[in-house]
Order: sequence, then structure tokens, then C-alpha cells
Amino acid sequence: MDSLDRLGPEDGAIRVPVPDREIVKTFVGVRKRTDEITTVLSPEDQQAQSMADASPAKWHRAHATWFFETFLLAPFLDGYEVFDETFVRQFNSYYEAFGERQYRPERGLITRPSAAIIDVYRAYVDDAMTTFLEKAQARDDWPTIRSLAWLGLNHEQQHQELLLTDILHLFSRNSLCPAYIEPTEDIISRTPAPELKWVDFEGGLVAIGHNGEEFAFDNEGPEHRVHLRPYRIASRLVTNGEWKAFIADGGYETASLWLSDGLAFIRENGIKSPLYWREIDGVWFAMTLNGLLEVDDAAPVAHVNFYEADAFARWAGKRLPSEAEWENAARRSGRPGRFLGDGDPRPKPSPTGREGLTQMFGDCWEWTGSAHVPYPGFEPRAGAIGEYNGKFMCNQMVLKGGSCATPPGHVRATYRNFFHPHHQWQFSGLRLTENG
Amino acid sequence: MDSLDRLGPEDGAIRVPVPDREIVKTFVGVRKRTDEITTVLSPEDQQAQSMADASPAKWHRAHATWFFETFLLAPFLDGYEVFDETFVRQFNSYYEAFGERQYRPERGLITRPSAAIIDVYRAYVDDAMTTFLEKAQARDDWPTIRSLAWLGLNHEQQHQELLLTDILHLFSRNSLCPAYIEPTEDIISRTPAPELKWVDFEGGLVAIGHNGEEFAFDNEGPEHRVHLRPYRIASRLVTNGEWKAFIADGGYETASLWLSDGLAFIRENGIKSPLYWREIDGVWFAMTLNGLLEVDDAAPVAHVNFYEADAFARWAGKRLPSEAEWENAARRSGRPGRFLGDGDPRPKPSPTGREGLTQMFGDCWEWTGSAHVPYPGFEPRAGAIGEYNGKFMCNQMVLKGGSCATPPGHVRATYRNFFHPHHQWQFSGLRLTENG
Amino acid sequence: MDSLDRLGPEDGAIRVPVPDREIVKTFVGVRKRTDEITTVLSPEDQQAQSMADASPAKWHRAHATWFFETFLLAPFLDGYEVFDETFVRQFNSYYEAFGERQYRPERGLITRPSAAIIDVYRAYVDDAMTTFLEKAQARDDWPTIRSLAWLGLNHEQQHQELLLTDILHLFSRNSLCPAYIEPTEDIISRTPAPELKWVDFEGGLVAIGHNGEEFAFDNEGPEHRVHLRPYRIASRLVTNGEWKAFIADGGYETASLWLSDGLAFIRENGIKSPLYWREIDGVWFAMTLNGLLEVDDAAPVAHVNFYEADAFARWAGKRLPSEAEWENAARRSGRPGRFLGDGDPRPKPSPTGREGLTQMFGDCWEWTGSAHVPYPGFEPRAGAIGEYNGKFMCNQMVLKGGSCATPPGHVRATYRNFFHPHHQWQFSGLRLTENG
Amino acid sequence: MDSLDRLGPEDGAIRVPVPDREIVKTFVGVRKRTDEITTVLSPEDQQAQSMADASPAKWHRAHATWFFETFLLAPFLDGYEVFDETFVRQFNSYYEAFGERQYRPERGLITRPSAAIIDVYRAYVDDAMTTFLEKAQARDDWPTIRSLAWLGLNHEQQHQELLLTDILHLFSRNSLCPAYIEPTEDIISRTPAPELKWVDFEGGLVAIGHNGEEFAFDNEGPEHRVHLRPYRIASRLVTNGEWKAFIADGGYETASLWLSDGLAFIRENGIKSPLYWREIDGVWFAMTLNGLLEVDDAAPVAHVNFYEADAFARWAGKRLPSEAEWENAARRSGRPGRFLGDGDPRPKPSPTGREGLTQMFGDCWEWTGSAHVPYPGFEPRAGAIGEYNGKFMCNQMVLKGGSCATPPGHVRATYRNFFHPHHQWQFSGLRLTENG
Repeated sequence: MDSLDRLGPEDGAIRVPVPDREIVKTFVGVRKRTDEITTVLSPEDQQAQSMADASPAKWHRAHATWFFETFLLAPFLDGYEVFDETFVRQFNSYYEAFGERQYRPERGLITRPSAAIIDVYRAYVDDAMTTFLEKAQARDDWPTIRSLAWLGLNHEQQHQELLLTDILHLFSRNSLCPAYIEPTEDIISRTPAPELKWVDFEGGLVAIGHNGEEFAFDNEGPEHRVHLRPYRIASRLVTNGEWKAFIADGGYETASLWLSDGLAFIRENGIKSPLYWREIDGVWFAMTLNGLLEVDDAAPVAHVNFYEADAFARWAGKRLPSEAEWENAARRSGRPGRFLGDGDPRPKPSPTGREGLTQMFGDCWEWTGSAHVPYPGFEPRAGAIGEYNGKFMCNQMVLKGGSCATPPGHVRATYRNFFHPHHQWQFSGLRLTENG
Repeated sequence: MDSLDRLGPEDGAIRVPVPDREIVKTFVGVRKRTDEITTVLSPEDQQAQSMADASPAKWHRAHATWFFETFLLAPFLDGYEVFDETFVRQFNSYYEAFGERQYRPERGLITRPSAAIIDVYRAYVDDAMTTFLEKAQARDDWPTIRSLAWLGLNHEQQHQELLLTDILHLFSRNSLCPAYIEPTEDIISRTPAPELKWVDFEGGLVAIGHNGEEFAFDNEGPEHRVHLRPYRIASRLVTNGEWKAFIADGGYETASLWLSDGLAFIRENGIKSPLYWREIDGVWFAMTLNGLLEVDDAAPVAHVNFYEADAFARWAGKRLPSEAEWENAARRSGRPGRFLGDGDPRPKPSPTGREGLTQMFGDCWEWTGSAHVPYPGFEPRAGAIGEYNGKFMCNQMVLKGGSCATPPGHVRATYRNFFHPHHQWQFSGLRLTENG
Repeated sequence: MDSLDRLGPEDGAIRVPVPDREIVKTFVGVRKRTDEITTVLSPEDQQAQSMADASPAKWHRAHATWFFETFLLAPFLDGYEVFDETFVRQFNSYYEAFGERQYRPERGLITRPSAAIIDVYRAYVDDAMTTFLEKAQARDDWPTIRSLAWLGLNHEQQHQELLLTDILHLFSRNSLCPAYIEPTEDIISRTPAPELKWVDFEGGLVAIGHNGEEFAFDNEGPEHRVHLRPYRIASRLVTNGEWKAFIADGGYETASLWLSDGLAFIRENGIKSPLYWREIDGVWFAMTLNGLLEVDDAAPVAHVNFYEADAFARWAGKRLPSEAEWENAARRSGRPGRFLGDGDPRPKPSPTGREGLTQMFGDCWEWTGSAHVPYPGFEPRAGAIGEYNGKFMCNQMVLKGGSCATPPGHVRATYRNFFHPHHQWQFSGLRLTENG
Repeated sequence: MDSLDRLGPEDGAIRVPVPDREIVKTFVGVRKRTDEITTVLSPEDQQAQSMADASPAKWHRAHATWFFETFLLAPFLDGYEVFDETFVRQFNSYYEAFGERQYRPERGLITRPSAAIIDVYRAYVDDAMTTFLEKAQARDDWPTIRSLAWLGLNHEQQHQELLLTDILHLFSRNSLCPAYIEPTEDIISRTPAPELKWVDFEGGLVAIGHNGEEFAFDNEGPEHRVHLRPYRIASRLVTNGEWKAFIADGGYETASLWLSDGLAFIRENGIKSPLYWREIDGVWFAMTLNGLLEVDDAAPVAHVNFYEADAFARWAGKRLPSEAEWENAARRSGRPGRFLGDGDPRPKPSPTGREGLTQMFGDCWEWTGSAHVPYPGFEPRAGAIGEYNGKFMCNQMVLKGGSCATPPGHVRATYRNFFHPHHQWQFSGLRLTENG
């Protein structure tokens, strides 16, 4: 039984399709999971911001709450009183429509309100939301409200993952290498990674993009046709062991393997391994949410950026899949890997003995060779919510499939995650592809 | 009679297809044109480098010559003696295969060799090349040689255009606003721009990419099929007059029009108009290759970056075409505008009274909404020459159609030019598109 | 009765000279005062670092404690067990002798240990120190120990002031403008500043620098002779009202008033007023430790950097004093202003009706025109402690006299504080001088 | 016979005091020397600017000419027509009083006017100046004019030195390592450096600063008294051989030797030797005005910055002299070393067999431990000329004595040169000092 079946709304997972009558239960489950994630973090842990791209845990908790307040309660609930008028300035992420806001690299300076006040804020909004969602189902504008509620819940799930990747980054800068949680599973695999096999797809004119009743982000649609050549895709993710071979073969020093911008980036930043790897007395260790652990050869490589993934694929004589190739494969095949809540929050080896594509979902986001540009016919939603994805359709590459930090039920084949090609701090790995 | 028909090899234009027996004549014509372009430039003008993205004129002249020497004479001509062994270090642009080279932002520090030495260098290589090309046609490896020769000639033409855009940038930083050449035509149009009309295309499964006998760059292929929705494309380029309306309407200050990265870029750099525009006593002027001129409302806007083009299109309620949409249109329709040599080197208004698409070629490169990623099945050539385009397939956007600084005969519908989305210094404009 | 007389060791002030038998009482008093300063700060407030030059409050508390542990307990107390071996890496400020340490701009990332652990750390070291100091007085090496103990106490007092200036900076970046403590005194003076008078000094060959039994930092000595011309020094600090006149007269825009480096600095950073000033509807407000308050014309201007102080003096047709001029004046005259603990922690107007120099001590540090270079014959102490001041004797300017955030009893006429000329975030003001 | 005696005005040297009747001859000599310096430089060599701190040779030639035009001809010569009204914008260095000007790092972009036009400009101003200086001696305001003329000539001499140091920097960035002029002397000394001896000075109250009839820059005065302790100063400059020992002993890696700002600077910039040194197969070479030469152990070390000089002195157990100590010694003793024109433009070993202080003038500027702050009673001149030195009295350290690139007759004991402590590109070395 796989993750997608196992979890219900009370676990913070979204079962798709979710009937309206379960929306409150789902809301409560998702919100509760955020609190569970942060329960082991001290006020100090929740305060610090380790780089401009990351946000403090407290900020994530407040921002996801502000989202419900701003896009649902304030416009749709008569008589709703905003918890604190100053929060729009502090906890708005990037919506230009709401005016000036805290400078992004200085979110860690918001020491007031405290984490305790954010607890109160979350409870206040949760109270209002649960009552509101119960009653609003009878309203004429329920379809709009429902749509925004699902957006808010999926948005909160995105921040659950970001919260974890940001905490990992923060703890990696602490010389004590603290574990977010202690490991409960084997650190090193007892068996090697399963043999890499190739799964063939014939291509042709295929449908790509979202076209269903269930929730999807705006950038997943509209559905449209794409013509694909025959191709083959690897049965599992690239492993740490394979990455060590790339390093040992001088991969980071071989200019011909790298895109021009990538070569400049790794040279300027002195990058010679995945983000959290460090060599200690000849042995590779990696900082993880379970603290500093020896690198597990059989597990998928994580925390490589697009440039690294692309260079590795070239070194291997292969390439990255396009997002259409990946999605076409994922629609036809594939068993999920691990999501948030499936044991230790680390990518783990693919089980041996499985046929076909494995780990297409979970474990590691997979870099594709496709830029995040609008699908044909894409139109952002009207108003501030239109800023959600549309304004990031430049300079970023698409990743597919979710990771070990993604809440179960959150991703699907059409899901388009995106990051700049130099970003390493997500659970980002890769799967090889070749022409058929 | 249009530019493409008018010019022969003796003018530095490439007539396509060019029979082998004309290759020497073409070679001589292209090389001569470079010299003609720089004849009005002093040694000082040829020396200076105004920014890291630009190169000195002397460097362009030497580099294009080094290209022939390195990829043709040295490997294929027995007994050829390299003009100067040190030049590989100074005039190699970006080929990692040839080792360490002059730091790109410091090309302007190569004061020795002098421009006069580069004259000698060019003559030396020209002598060798013309003899070589005559004789090599009888060799078994002539197809390889021919292919590289055409690459070298097209490469030199690319540098002719870059040389001009770099000189314009340099002169724009000189408070004297010197003209590269004095204007010979009307500065301001006597008639307004022709009315913008929409030309419909039905889309469907279309072929895109190069698949012919004639020369094309590697990134133009392989030909492949793309499925397009119906769309409409504007009959002419966006004009300066229309851009003034965008400015007057607060376009540069309206956050909702901009991609996130674009907004950050224009704010950080204080950009409020196209690169070379400056307002003097309430009137817009622009630095051009003809010096500082009043902005001509009927002429196409130039020197806007991708972010600006995209924001303008959004402001106009339209969008940029994808490269496939553009190419599909260009294959079916279109009369050329002005190329290098067609009067003053400025974009000029589209002639009135023409039907269908105008200015698809020439006047201004047109930003598309497509990222420069490899076409399906793309394989870079083996060896150093494989670095030509392949390693730039990230973070850049495709431009189509050529400009008033592009040598005639150089572009075609499949041509993929590319620049980073923040770059403004090329003759880059835009053409609006909408869904059909 | 003035501050210097009023306070004893139980208030965290150092009465000079302090007899050995009072050293434990003084130690307890100083340490307690630090805790009092931070008692109103939440764990979050103590965690954040608002700029590279500042440190988190928690870090200050831990570092000052580490100093005692490292320079006294570890080397001198047999059997002392270091509280935590990892702290040297986290809470060493800049002593190269102790190896690699937390990157200075990332002190705010040390979320673990928590503030609560630092409480335990402080208590642990306090216990050890009080017992140690009692017993050590009988030891042969007591003079060395005593000297280091006084250094540690004065060091902790320096961090008390820095803690407050860093908290002010942090809170100034919070859009809520929180008050560190609520004001208890009039915000705006009821009477204007006293008239500025000139106090004459004849100069000649005078002694400068420390030469006594009492504690002084190494950079204050050795005492040496300096020849001074006759000069006149202002009876009080420059006021906010006078600074408003400077602004209104275009002081920040008048290039001829500024040092070259200063002009570049204010232009690049868009500086047009003291650091914490902001104009709201035509009225000047300033962020203070009492929150955002209207600027008090009669109070001394604070948070100006050396460049600003120097430009103001030039605008006024005067100059800054040299450190020798200042010290010579302070040795002969002067009544103290306000120190830490004397009411609200803001610079306040000089009382009217006093003769001679006022505010020479307290209220605001006073920029001098002297660079922080070694006095003739200066020798840093041997070992790590020699890094205390000696390695900062370049690029910094001397400030004299202490401020409203300086603990009483901490400064003296020979005291040499120093900051880079662009730094604004200390309580730094100025006093005018002219040739006699 | 030493340099100071040997040269007359016809050689571009200034014989002090120069009678009025020789001023024209001196003017012609100084101006001619500039032309001689640049005669071997191509237009390209004269165009390039290798860093923001340097200027193109053409710019130096034009700027020094503009200085005469602006401060003498325009204000004092009735009917004088400025050569080109646009030059103030291009060739004003830093005088804010004359308005906006070419951005300093972009002086290398002034390709027009050409070097040939600057030749004409120089001749035009020389014609006007020589006539003017002849006639003006009869005017009532001759003292003012004479003073400005001397300033202009000394100013031009400063630019002669800067021109050479800037050309050296430029050529050092060229992989061909071109020689400005071929060497005519031994590259490597045949004898070792003379033994370092110590010369004692008793100190006491001494006079420092300029107080004479002859020309001096404003920052050299007024003369004033300084009290010095007894000290000893080295008989010669520190040599390359001694610097190699410092490197071999790990000087650049020993944190305790360095000022805090200095350590940060060398680490960030990867500095491990003097600016132009490079190790080739275990042998140290240095780029010089005679091209790339093996380092001469007996010659003085040059192109070290203040941080390096200070660290070396600490390593040697000594210190740098204060400027007062240096000047006091130089007034009493010392034979000059080499100036511009004394053979190859490189620092050369001190002759053996000389008594007392050698090389106090010439060979290398000597870093002192004194910051460039105003002398007591310093007043800048009124008007734009007051910007000459006054506005640079912050963040810079004083150097004394001139170098092998300083025109003979240009320096004197009171001369105060100054550069930022990180600057390496001048002929800057050091002389050790210790307490007496």
C-alpha cells in the first residue's frame, strides 16, 4: 500500500478528489501538520533566516495563515476582523498588490511578533476558517471560495516543505550540526541500489497539463498537445554512489560537461559536491534533517542544482527529460517513493524487485530540461492571486514529482515546481533519459 | 526588390544556396565588409570595452580571424604557421578546450597587439584562406571543410553585428555622443507608422527547425514537430510612439505588468525607458549609430530587454509569440525590413500599404516567449566547436528575425538568436501576438 | 551629585579605584546589569542579527561570559571544566589565536544553544568566577589575574553598550518600531538647549594617555607628550536643532563640505539625515530605544558618522577636536552628562546654567579628527589578549567621552573608543572646536 | 653628484628655489618630459584603463593640461578661448566645483578625442601658457599666478609618476608582459644589499611641516611642533630578499602579524606576495616597467600595501616610522636614491659603503604609520583648488620620500604622499624603525 492511499485528511494529506463535506477535516489536518512540523523548533530556531532565499519557520507559519485571512476571510466573511493590521506588511510574501512589505532578506529581523503570538494568530484564523468553511458551502459563491480554500491548503503544504528545507539549511550553518529529528532508520542501506533499467515510451502527440475537476495550480494548465519523439527513461533516480563516481572522475573540473552559466557558478562559489556534502578524513558525510550522516551510496542524490544535474547527465552520456517526457511517463507508470511522514525525512533507496518506473513521486524532486514558461493559453487569475505563479515564468527550470519533504497527496503528474538553475537547497535530484 | 535578392557575395552578403565555386568570392566579401565597418573607427575606438558583455572592435576583428585560423587552417592546412602563438590566449572567446584565456571583462586591456598588427593578421589569414579554399575543394574532407568555412563566415557576420552594437554602447557612454556615421536619411518619419493589423494562423502540427542543405547553426535543428493552437500575430513591430504611451501610462511603475525578476531588475537599475533614451526638456532623444537623435514615433522601438518586451505586451493585453509561432508565421509570409547596408543603421518604420507581415526580418530582433533550450534530438558537434551554441542553452531567451545591423543573407526563419532576459544593448524589439 | 559619584558596584558601575576586596561585589554587579538589560528581550529578540556589524543579544551575553572562561578560568583555575567545548567556535569574537569561528555576519544563525542555555552558562561561569576571585587574591599571580578580571569586566561593559546599540538597530528595521523600554521622561524638552559658549585652552606641551594605577585599556597608553596650539572648544554637544538647520541649508547636497570618501558614501547609500531619522508629513521623527519619537531640538544629535560630523563642522566654520585637544580639555574641566541608568536611554539636553564644559562624558560619544593609531611606545600585550585593540589601529577614528548607553564608571578622559568613519549606529555625536 | 643637483629645468626637474626668470624654461621642461614619457606608447596603450584607481595615459596628458587651462588661463588671461568646452566634463578629475564629470572607472571609454587631438590640445595650452607666464610677471597678481603655476607644474609631475604606475598596472594585465622600455642595466645585482644599520635620533620637541618660500602642497603645512621619543631608523629600505624570507616564514598566513582589516583584505583577494610577483617553476619573477624580470634580492621591495608593510615590520620585531619621525630624520641626514630618469625605472639596491641613511629619497615611497589627517592649523585654499588635498584627509596613510618614478626635484622632506592602506600599485616599500 502506497503513501497516496494510506493517508487521509486527519494526517494532513489531501485525498483527491476530496468531497466538500470533508473540506473542514482536511483544513484541520493540514494546519495541524504544520504545527507538528514546528513543535520541535525553539523560538530561536523559528526566528533565524539563513539566506535570502529561505524564510524563518515562524514566518512560514504566519504567512500561510495570512494567506487564508487575506484571500478568504477578509474578502468573503462579513464582519471578520483582521487579527493585526500590521501583519500584511510583515507576512505578505511577494504580492505587489498589497503594497510595501518586509524586505525579503530581512524576514529574520521580525522578532516581534513572537512565536507565541503566531500561535495565537493561527488559532484565531483556524477558528474563523473552520466555521466559515462549514457555512459557506451553502453560498452561491461557494465554487470561488472552495477554489481559494484548496489553493490555501496546497499553499500551506508548499510551505511545509519549504519550512523543512529552510531549517535544514539553517542547521547546516550551525557548527553543532543539530538534527531536526533523530534518525529512526538505518543510516546506511544494507543493500545496494537496484539496477538501473530503461523504460521505453513511444512518444507521438500526447496531452500534457491539467484538465480535471481536482485542484491544480494555475501553471499546470491548460491541457495541450505536445509532440514527443520516442524516448527512454531510467527506472530510478541517480544515486549518491553514482554521484561519487562523477566526482571521482573529475566531473566538477571538466569544463566540457557544463553549461556556460553553470561553469561560472560552480567556479565562483567553489562548488565541488552536492550542497550538504563534506569530506571528513576521506569519507563523504552529508548534513540531513537527521544531522550529519555518512553518505548512503544506494540512496538518491539530493541537493544538486540544475547545472549539476545537467552536467552529470552529460557525463553519463544521457540527458535530462523534458517536462513533457516526464509527465507522459508518469501518467502511464510509476510507484511512489517516500513523502513527508514516511519515516525519516531523507531520500531513501528505491526498493529492489520492482518493475517499471520507481520513485517518480517522492524522495527527490527531479530536474527537467524545461524552462518554466507559460503553457499555451495560460492566463493568470484576476487580481492579486494572479501573482501566484505567473510572474515567476522566467529564468527558472521545472522540477517534477515531489520529495521526501512533500506532504503526501500534494503532488501529481501535472505538478510543475520551479527553481532557479543555481538553487541547491531543495531536495532536488535527477533521473536520466535518452532518445529512443 | 528586397535586400535578400539585392546583395551578392561581393557585398558581404551570403546568397543561399551558395555554390562551392563562389565560396572564395563570398569569403572575400564577408571579410571585406568587416573592414569596411571598422574603417571609420580610430585605434582608440577599436580599443575600448564599455562593459563586460561587450568587446572592443579590435578584439572582434582579431577573434573572427582567429576562428578561421584555429578551426580551419591549423587543423587542415599542412605546414600552416600560426601567425602568433600568443593569440589563442588573447582572442579565444569562450572555448574551454583551448585553455586559459583573457578574462572577458578585460578584453579592453589588450593594447598590444595594436590595431595595425591586427590588420596584418587579417591579411595573413585571408591570404592563407583564399588559397586554401580554392584547393581544398578537391579534397576528400571537403564537406567538413566547407561546413566549417560556412560556420566561420556566419560567425564573422555575427561579430559584424556585435561590433556595431558594442560601438553604439561605447559611444553612448561618451558625453560627446559621437555618431558612428552621420545620418543620410530623414531623422523623423514624414508619415505615421502603418496601422497594426493581425494576421491569423491556424496552428496544428507544424514542422519547426532547420532541415536543409544550406548552412544553419547547430541550435536550429533538428527539425521536429510542434503542435500549435490558433494564433494571430501583428503585422509590424511595436513602435516608439507606442512605447511612449506605455511610459506615459506608468508602465515602468506598474508592478502587476512585470515578471518578478524583471521588476527587481528595473528597480535595482533605475530603468525607466529603453536603454538609449534620454529625456531632454520634455522631449525624448535616443543615442543611435547616427548620434543622438530625437525619437522617431513611427520607427520600431529598439534596445528593450525581454522583461520590458514582456511587460509591454501584458500592458497591451497581448503576449509575445513563442518561437514556434513566430517561425511558423515567418515560413509562410513576410517581407523583409532593413539589414546592414540598407541606408542608415537604424530601425526604420515599416512601409505603409503592404499586406501581411512586414519587418519579420531586419530592423529589430524580436523577443519571443521561448527559452533557449535544446530542440529534441539536439546534439552538439564533437570537439571544441561543440561549444558554439550548446553551452548557452540556459537562462537565455530566443530572438528571431535579425536587425538593421544584421548582414543581409545572414538570417532565416529557423535562426535562433539568444540573449539573457535583462540584456538591452542589442537591436531588440518586439511584435505582439494573441490567441486565435 | 553626578553619575560618577552616585553609583557603586552593586549597580554595575565601577568605582575607581576599586579596592581588591570589592572585586567580587563589582563582578556580581556588572554581570547582573547585563541580565537586567536583556530581561525585557524575548528569545527571538536575542536571536536576530540585523547587520554584519551588529551581534545578537544572546551572542553578546555568551561572548562576554566566554571571555571570563577563556582568559581567566581555563588558564588559571586548576580543574576547571569548560562548560561546552563547542562554544569557542561560536562565541569567540575575533581572536585568531583560538582558530576558526562562526562567520561574523552569521552570528544570528546560532539558534542552538538557546537563550535558556546561555542563562545556565552565565550562572555556571559566575559561580566559578566568584569563588575563584575570592581565593585568587592570595596567589602570587594575583596581579595578572586582577588585571585580566578588570579587563573582563570592562569588556562586559563594552558589550552592554553594544547590546543596546544593536537592539536599537534591530528594532529600527521592524516596521512596528517597538520600544526597548517605554519612555518615562518628557519626549520634547521644555526649554531650548543652553547657549553654546567657547572654553579656551592655551595648549603647549601636554601629557596625553593613561599613566595610573587604575584599569585602562592597552590603547590608552603609554602616556606621552603632545604639543598643542591654543584652541577653543564648545561648551556642549551639537544639537538636533542645529542639525536640522544643516539639513535645511542643503548640507547633505553641498559637495564642498564633504571629505571625498564621505561624499561617495552618502551618495551611494542615499544618506540625507542621521541614521534613525525619518520625515513624516514634514516632521522629523527618530527611532530610539523608547520607540519612534519626535526629534527633540534641544537634545544632542546622535547616530551621525564621522563623515557627517566632519561635514557639519565645516558647514559651521569650525572643526572637530583632535583627541589630544579633547583629552586635555576633559582632564581640566567638565561635568558629566547621562550614562546608562540615568533615566531614559536617550541623549538629553545639557542642563542650562552650568559653567564650563558640559556633557564631556555621557550622552553621546564625540567624534574626533584623530585616527586610531598606536600611541608612541604602544606595545600590545603578549598572547591572544594582545589582539584586543592593537589590530584595529587602522581606518578607524577615535571617539571620546561615552554615551547614554555607557555604564557609569566605565569611561575616563584617556578612553579611546574607535569606529570606522562610515559607522552611524553608535550613540555618536560631536562637539565643535576652533583654533584659539 | 646626486640627482637633485644634476638636473635642471630643461630635463623636467625643478631646481629649488627657482627664480621667476626660469619659470618658463621650467614649464617647458616639465611639459616636455610628459611627452617623452608617453612617446613609446601607442594610441591603444594610451587609451586603456586597467582599474578604477588608474587612468589612461591619454587622460593624464589631457587632465594635466586642463589643469593649467582651468586654474590659470581661463581665470587670468583676458580673451583666452578654451580649447574645447566639453573637456571639463571629460578631463576634470574630482573637482566638484566644476560639476558633473566622466565616471571615474570609465575614463577608458573616452575614445574621442583621440590621442592626436590631445597632442594639439597640449600644444595649444603650451603656447598660451609660455606667453602668459612671460608677461604675467609684471602683473600685480603675479604672486597668485606664480603660486598656481608652480602648483600646476608639480601637479603635472605627480601625473608623470601616476602615468607610469598606471602603465605598469595595465601591462601587467597583458599576458604578453610587454616592457614599457627595455632594460639597460643589470637585472640582478652583482653584490648583495648593504648591511642594515640603525641610525639614532634623540627626538624631543621638533619642528615638522613646511615653512619656506619654495613651493609646497597645502597639506605639508603649517609647520608645527611635535614631541618625539628617541628612535632608531634603518639605513636602507627593506629588500626583496628580506621579503622572500617573510614569505618563506609563512608571513602571509600568520594571522597574528596582521591588522584586522589587512587580514581580511589579503584573504579576500588571495594576496600572497607583492602585487607584481609571480612564482614560475619555483623562481620569483616580477612584472616591471622593463617587463617580466627575475626578482632582485638586493633591490628594495616595491608594490606592497600598508597592510603588508605593517605586517612585515611586526614580523621583523620592528615597526613603521611615524611621518614625524621620518621627516625629522630626513631633515638631518640622507642621500637620495634613484629618481625618474636615473637609469631603468626600477628600484635598485642601495650602494654599499655609504654612511648614514640612504634611499630616503627615491627608489620607493615609504609607508609610515601615520594617517593622512590635517596638520594643526591646516586650512585648504579658497575655491575649487581647495579640493586639491584637503578632501582626502581620511582613510589614507602617509608615504614619504618619492620613488624611481618620481621626477627629480619633486619631493622634499615635508612632502606628504598618501594612499589607501590596501593600495599596492605604487612604487611603495618600507623602512624599519624601532624605539630608541
